[in-house]
Amino acid sequence: MKNVKIVEVGLRDGLQNETTQLSVEQRYDLYDKLVRAGVKNIEIGAFVSPKWVPQMALTAELCAMVLPEGEKVKSKVQATVLVPNEQGMLQAIEAGVKEVAIFAACSESFSQKNINCSIDESFERFVPVMKLAKEFKIKVRGYLSTCFGCPFEGKVSEAKVVSLVKKMHKLGCYEISVGDTIGVANAAQVESLFKKLKKVVPVNKLAGHFHDTRGQALANILAAYNVGIRTFDSSIGGLGGCPYAPGAAGNVATEDVIYMFDGMKVKTGLKLDQLIDTHRWLQPLMDHQLSSKVGRVGRLKPIGKVQ
Amino acid sequence: MKNVKIVEVGLRDGLQNETTQLSVEQRYDLYDKLVRAGVKNIEIGAFVSPKWVPQMALTAELCAMVLPEGEKVKSKVQATVLVPNEQGMLQAIEAGVKEVAIFAACSESFSQKNINCSIDESFERFVPVMKLAKEFKIKVRGYLSTCFGCPFEGKVSEAKVVSLVKKMHKLGCYEISVGDTIGVANAAQVESLFKKLKKVVPVNKLAGHFHDTRGQALANILAAYNVGIRTFDSSIGGLGGCPYAPGAAGNVATEDVIYMFDGMKVKTGLKLDQLIDTHRWLQPLMDHQLSSKVGRVGRLKPIGKVQ
Repeated sequence: MKNVKIVEVGLRDGLQNETTQLSVEQRYDLYDKLVRAGVKNIEIGAFVSPKWVPQMALTAELCAMVLPEGEKVKSKVQATVLVPNEQGMLQAIEAGVKEVAIFAACSESFSQKNINCSIDESFERFVPVMKLAKEFKIKVRGYLSTCFGCPFEGKVSEAKVVSLVKKMHKLGCYEISVGDTIGVANAAQVESLFKKLKKVVPVNKLAGHFHDTRGQALANILAAYNVGIRTFDSSIGGLGGCPYAPGAAGNVATEDVIYMFDGMKVKTGLKLDQLIDTHRWLQPLMDHQLSSKVGRVGRLKPIGKVQ
Repeated sequence: MKNVKIVEVGLRDGLQNETTQLSVEQRYDLYDKLVRAGVKNIEIGAFVSPKWVPQMALTAELCAMVLPEGEKVKSKVQATVLVPNEQGMLQAIEAGVKEVAIFAACSESFSQKNINCSIDESFERFVPVMKLAKEFKIKVRGYLSTCFGCPFEGKVSEAKVVSLVKKMHKLGCYEISVGDTIGVANAAQVESLFKKLKKVVPVNKLAGHFHDTRGQALANILAAYNVGIRTFDSSIGGLGGCPYAPGAAGNVATEDVIYMFDGMKVKTGLKLDQLIDTHRWLQPLMDHQLSSKVGRVGRLKPIGKVQ
């Protein structure tokens, strides 16, 4: 199977790491453009404290704008909202969300710094969330962060990642996104880890989530694709950043990923020209140059033969 | 064989596409830092008209500074100078150069626009150059540009590239650098072309030269590596640009390439930390942010465990 599923995360993982705060109307416009560009799986926000993450404020309002349309085209677009705990899950249910995402870290230090609890405690918090999910027939996607390295502890063992992916799978997550949160992975490491993960979890339950902090993201996606991974997270324009490396690149850019897969004749369902248009619409709203190179330069448009 | 040979092209292909003109002393300092970082193969300049390419002015002076040292460490460092024709070759001989590079395009329009002659005519110009090379025991490296696409004509046929690579090999080039001049290639195209080229020329005579205009360069290097290519051109900091896409990224950055290969346990002989130091020394001399992400962000330096 050559087809690839893209999960667009610009509206959540992207925007929450940007200093620019888009209005809920701008976020809706971005959602709309992405869906028109063929995006079928899209994270639209997070039910977290707007005090800590102001970029995600008014996610309920965004849900209200998106979900009625989501109903109309529900067979086509899966809109996901991140929930950190039971409280967030209750807000998601209230907002009529049909898919949520939960997250845990692979290193204790990152877990403590990011969500102020141990990894075990974060899994305890998932229990009531999963219970509600079952009750309300809500799909749950799992994120594992710092799978390839931790800004505090450095190396993260493959065995640790394998055990946590198994744990998330057992918990009931229909897909587990294996994240290089600080963009430190290399192609060999990606190949090695996914080969191990495939042995413990069905390969179609695994997704790759790569940040481009060190320019390695696309090579890492290619390496993961070559060992059978068929779901990747990406962010329009390369929205996002790295809280541990100010000014650094964020998530791999959706346009750059689609450029590669289009060239490889791998179907994603996304339309490159409309993604490039979306990049160009988005650029003036942000306070820095978007990192996507395909978005900036566009496709090759031949000038014409020289006689 | 896992080892990879890196040809550093920042001082030529990089600088000639930058608006900043470094002094010959700054160019020498950059050369010196690169050699100390383990660079063994390095393009240092071009014998072209300083009227047309002012960035390459004083290449003879740079040769005079580099080559005495080159003599001392000649078993270690191969310094190359680009020559467009017999006149340039005579200057190279005068300067005591032991290796030159010649170049041709794979599309007629690019050849006309870039060097004002047809592809056939450019090969005619090589005849006296190769004769002098033989006489003075000078090695000749060949560049083929626009192998994956042309800014004027768009598509370039694989058959055309194959025939020109054969022609350069027959001419006596010890290595042929297959260039994605405008950064338009994708991983599948790279794999396909190099598989064909390997059938007509020994694989150890082929090099990959990728520009990062659309963020694909590292993925393309990985794809070429996976089909057996073991020589790659790169540019410190990602120096360079694309004359057909103002503000666009230039050559793939040496630091980013070494980060990937180090991770893959592929030996290059280059030292990442010293490359990063060189990037940081170079940055304030340039008029824009260097595109290398590894150079900007550096390696992961763990902050320390959180208790």
